[in-house]
Amino acid sequence: MALASRDALEFPESDREFLEPQLPPRDGSTPRPDMPFTTLTFATSLDSSLALSPGTRTVLSGPQSKAMTHYLRSRHDGILIGVGTALADDPGLNCRLTGVGGYGKEGLEGQPRPIVIDPSARWDFSDDSKLFQLCRQGRGLAPWIVTSLPELPVQKKEMLEKYGGGFLQLKMVTLDDGQHRIDWCDLLKTLHINGLGSVMVEGGAQVINSLLEPQSMSLIDRVIVTIAPTWLGQGGVIVSPARRFDGEGNAISAARLKNVRWYPFGEDVVLCGQIRI
Amino acid sequence: MALASRDALEFPESDREFLEPQLPPRDGSTPRPDMPFTTLTFATSLDSSLALSPGTRTVLSGPQSKAMTHYLRSRHDGILIGVGTALADDPGLNCRLTGVGGYGKEGLEGQPRPIVIDPSARWDFSDDSKLFQLCRQGRGLAPWIVTSLPELPVQKKEMLEKYGGGFLQLKMVTLDDGQHRIDWCDLLKTLHINGLGSVMVEGGAQVINSLLEPQSMSLIDRVIVTIAPTWLGQGGVIVSPARRFDGEGNAISAARLKNVRWYPFGEDVVLCGQIRI
Repeated sequence: MALASRDALEFPESDREFLEPQLPPRDGSTPRPDMPFTTLTFATSLDSSLALSPGTRTVLSGPQSKAMTHYLRSRHDGILIGVGTALADDPGLNCRLTGVGGYGKEGLEGQPRPIVIDPSARWDFSDDSKLFQLCRQGRGLAPWIVTSLPELPVQKKEMLEKYGGGFLQLKMVTLDDGQHRIDWCDLLKTLHINGLGSVMVEGGAQVINSLLEPQSMSLIDRVIVTIAPTWLGQGGVIVSPARRFDGEGNAISAARLKNVRWYPFGEDVVLCGQIRI
Repeated sequence: MALASRDALEFPESDREFLEPQLPPRDGSTPRPDMPFTTLTFATSLDSSLALSPGTRTVLSGPQSKAMTHYLRSRHDGILIGVGTALADDPGLNCRLTGVGGYGKEGLEGQPRPIVIDPSARWDFSDDSKLFQLCRQGRGLAPWIVTSLPELPVQKKEMLEKYGGGFLQLKMVTLDDGQHRIDWCDLLKTLHINGLGSVMVEGGAQVINSLLEPQSMSLIDRVIVTIAPTWLGQGGVIVSPARRFDGEGNAISAARLKNVRWYPFGEDVVLCGQIRI
């Protein structure tokens, strides 16, 4: 065994079966020729909260669901998050499944590429950031940071490249409220050109709600949501897409799933499905 | 067969099994001697919405879940809703399960007592209200209306009593924002004194969120929530209890369930559990 794997996670064969039809094909084929297989996955409370408040990390789901997340990571080439999650959680964004690179195997096989959407390069990472600690330990890949800035801070760029990461520059529309609108089609194509055959979008709420908007929801190949039997209460960080209206101005469902499967999983439930277009 | 049952619903024996441990005991016993067995039950979207907007009725769950609701109604002595739901939905609040009174059987056996929480007697019911139509057809019981007014409008009182319903007067605290705080303990004791051994609380959001507050959540014996694989989108009518804090002022989960069971049910999932105190 190449490296100690004291914090490695097990995801039993018996639990993998129900997920298999939801995962990127093992032959690397994609539903669209120029885009990665795209999975939207996250864990919420009954009241659709990801966390108790912005900028806090809330442990919602049980140990089985955590192991599932790491199994999903082992089956995707990239994990995508928004900068808010990077700032709030200082996340590792690696895969700790027993048997992947860094957890019982030499090299970095099975480790996904972390992708951080950071339009204004707000993320002030350093050698101490968990993600780079894991890089140094040979337990994870360095991130790609997606930004809209024309010029990149030299120090950040150099540090990122030292670890084998990089910046991707993408045009983004800045809205009146200062928020950035991600062009998901452009982003996913760019990731595909850069060699990613599959991506899982993990959060946070702003990124998820953006992907669930009408102009981008058709790019989602699978939805895998874990629901914990807890109400976090008002004021949480909520997954709920923008309201949609029909031609006559009546509110309609923002997004619906088809080919739905529910899988009780410890105290939680896992919902798998595809977006109904 | 006493009455036509063209709109009667079937709930197959095979689906009843998983619910049985969650239901009021058939011998009429209650967990507390002076209160009814209290079930909190409702259907939400993935983003915890009961409806697309206040005052609208949104069909969320599938036909199987609808039949389940009517089976649950057949197993409770009372169904409780808030006046907002009465105004929005003009609900029938009866039980349409094949074999109960009015749906294949003489009399009103198996029909629950509708209870409407209406502090200021806002509900302007008439002979045309669906609930009273069903009374005239021998398909449902007349409601009890719970109010805080010292005097009741004579016309409403007379009409209600004509159908066999009645008013219950309860003290309620009026908050600064004009909303009423229900004293759930007092309310449930009153319902028990009036002969109800079991009550299901069906909605709307204000009533549910109120019951899930710390001072009343311990009165809930079972929670049965149906979740539909749909995001209604922002601006819906949301189930999410008030935020809770620990002794040091940190936000904590508002309410958690124990003894959790998930039951995939058509496209929906049914969550059963008890409040973790």
